[in-house]
Amino acid sequence: MPWIKSEFPIFETARKEGRPLIFLDNASTTQKPQCVIDAIAGFYAGYYANVGRGLYWPATAASSGYDQAREKVRVFIGASSKKEVIFTSGTTDAVNKVVNSFLLPRLEQGDEVLVSEMEHHSNFVPWQHACQSKGAQLKVIPLDAGLNLDLSKLASMLTDKVKVLAVTAISNTLGVKNDLKKIIKLAHQYNIKVFVDAAQLPLSAKINVQNMGCDFLAFSGHKAFGPTGIGVLYGKQVLLENMSPLAYGGGMVQQVTIDKTIMADLPTKHEAGTPNIAGAIGLAAAIDFINLVGVEEIGKHSAELRKYAVERLSEIEGLTLFAKDAKTTAILSFTIEGIHPHDIAAFLTEKGIAVRAGHHCTHPLTHKLDIGGTVRVSFNIYNSEEEVDFLKNTLDEIKSFFL
Amino acid sequence: MPWIKSEFPIFETARKEGRPLIFLDNASTTQKPQCVIDAIAGFYAGYYANVGRGLYWPATAASSGYDQAREKVRVFIGASSKKEVIFTSGTTDAVNKVVNSFLLPRLEQGDEVLVSEMEHHSNFVPWQHACQSKGAQLKVIPLDAGLNLDLSKLASMLTDKVKVLAVTAISNTLGVKNDLKKIIKLAHQYNIKVFVDAAQLPLSAKINVQNMGCDFLAFSGHKAFGPTGIGVLYGKQVLLENMSPLAYGGGMVQQVTIDKTIMADLPTKHEAGTPNIAGAIGLAAAIDFINLVGVEEIGKHSAELRKYAVERLSEIEGLTLFAKDAKTTAILSFTIEGIHPHDIAAFLTEKGIAVRAGHHCTHPLTHKLDIGGTVRVSFNIYNSEEEVDFLKNTLDEIKSFFL
Repeated sequence: MPWIKSEFPIFETARKEGRPLIFLDNASTTQKPQCVIDAIAGFYAGYYANVGRGLYWPATAASSGYDQAREKVRVFIGASSKKEVIFTSGTTDAVNKVVNSFLLPRLEQGDEVLVSEMEHHSNFVPWQHACQSKGAQLKVIPLDAGLNLDLSKLASMLTDKVKVLAVTAISNTLGVKNDLKKIIKLAHQYNIKVFVDAAQLPLSAKINVQNMGCDFLAFSGHKAFGPTGIGVLYGKQVLLENMSPLAYGGGMVQQVTIDKTIMADLPTKHEAGTPNIAGAIGLAAAIDFINLVGVEEIGKHSAELRKYAVERLSEIEGLTLFAKDAKTTAILSFTIEGIHPHDIAAFLTEKGIAVRAGHHCTHPLTHKLDIGGTVRVSFNIYNSEEEVDFLKNTLDEIKSFFL
Repeated sequence: MPWIKSEFPIFETARKEGRPLIFLDNASTTQKPQCVIDAIAGFYAGYYANVGRGLYWPATAASSGYDQAREKVRVFIGASSKKEVIFTSGTTDAVNKVVNSFLLPRLEQGDEVLVSEMEHHSNFVPWQHACQSKGAQLKVIPLDAGLNLDLSKLASMLTDKVKVLAVTAISNTLGVKNDLKKIIKLAHQYNIKVFVDAAQLPLSAKINVQNMGCDFLAFSGHKAFGPTGIGVLYGKQVLLENMSPLAYGGGMVQQVTIDKTIMADLPTKHEAGTPNIAGAIGLAAAIDFINLVGVEEIGKHSAELRKYAVERLSEIEGLTLFAKDAKTTAILSFTIEGIHPHDIAAFLTEKGIAVRAGHHCTHPLTHKLDIGGTVRVSFNIYNSEEEVDFLKNTLDEIKSFFL
């Protein structure tokens, strides 16, 4: 869809040998459409102020822009109330805050937390650290031979001792999709709260937290056409109400005396300090863009490109594709026998193809796969079959060069 | 200095009755010069990518931009190493993280934390909450009759029990400046670590953390011409090295297994997740702008405007100026007998004058002053004596209208 690609100015500016950048690192971050850049610049140049208590214009305009962004996110994730939408600085920030404010005060020696073997470090290390600090146990749900999450193993790990199950919607290394609805239903039988790392989800499928049934869900703006430094934490209202604040400071209090502090209501209670107002306004513009193109359309396009890439890359002898037959979306990992993933990535770079090589912040997974790392390509709405063809041809060149 | 004002596009766009916005809420946030807006937009449109492990251009360009921003901050605050400069989402985030990672693991029942009576909630509530959770005591250093921090009282409160002294550089309500060098020297005699809330400092005076001697210092980009969602935490290297990470996740680890995690070195150890890259790049542009104009120049201009405002507003009968004779900088609070601060602010708004009314997130201070709130005006380089005159005349009108 050329009109869509032309909305992203970087493909005009960043060129290699006359060709636009082939950006296949979308699982790491996504490029920004002009409307997002304009929303941020327009805010700073046109109606910038702090939100909250200012009576004056532009403070009222900034507050209203921030509030509208929250409403846009609410609709985007299908939450029932704006009170359930907390702005954070990103997914990692959200995980850490839920660990500190929700898990730690409720975690006791002998308790358990479950994560999956495909988690990104950001949905692994914070839970691990919390468990270690309290004498609780972190247990890891394994993947089956096809690299899907092993639901029968999961079922056998569910007990009353488990306080939280933290699971990703989509593996950032393999592209494997988890059946969240089923996982959450299983966990809820034991009253286990489920935290969903939705970092890879917003451009893959329509999110509906009520339908999914999750207790918490987090994603980052920058992986969904939005700015850096902004993310969202969704939490069920009753949980957010009964949690201590995610941080303390200005804005989130009603009254402060030397002896005690009375907190404000949701969502303010969980947003201490001046928020990333421009970030929220930029994220709202990104959501507008997603809605304009259609999230199903974006997800379908990227999944089809993955399928096409599986076909084309299968032609290369010595190339191993991971999670070839799993339930997957926009992300595909592979290795080539005898060539280090970093050498492949470096060569691709020379041809203007941006991919990521390494462990993709998933050491437990690459350890399980018994590999040092993979080359990862991840697709988005601005990628095309021609780009996959060019990738395939360049990989052929790489083989001739190195082997 | 008209050329400076013309660098801020909002004064072209935001007008009231033909006049540009008179923005006197600079203690809350500052407007953005075009160069900052351009740096952010130029990053997204020209060389956007995630930082860290990508080998490809633009990942290398983004990483280099992020690293240069850290170096620019290092020079700006006079730190000896980039390892001592941690990007946060703002001052409040920095306070919370120091409380969680530095104070809490070291705080025991019976210990004490000192804050001053003029602290913003963000440098008060997090310490209060930490003390309450551990059975430690929060003690509040009083102000003297002239509303300066009472250093003799402070001296008498210093004991071996005190773990941290958290103090602001400049009162956000009164504009009163603290003698940080003296305070820190006193505290260090008892091995007390000093956290400086420098939110109001970057446009007031040149910061040199080594000369000042502080252990931690934090400020926000948005109060220094920079973007929202970015801030800086300075910490002495030995402290940052011996602290548990400010957050856990991707990027800040060297190796993760199911049993344990090995952390990366400074500063990465303390920056989990994708950082606010555009925020850091925007902040770097703001620092360039500050350096171009000169921080002493900005501070002098604003302090002179405060002095001029004290003169002009003293002409108004029934108007009380706070901290009239204290050591002050760009911020001035006042009340008018018989008129509610919010009514004054609302009337000023109608004339295109943006001020803040209320408690300014300093309940303990307004409680001490025994007032419900103040009207606060705060100056910056783009403000002028003519604006102060217009403020004075409008306050006269307000008096005629309400009294």
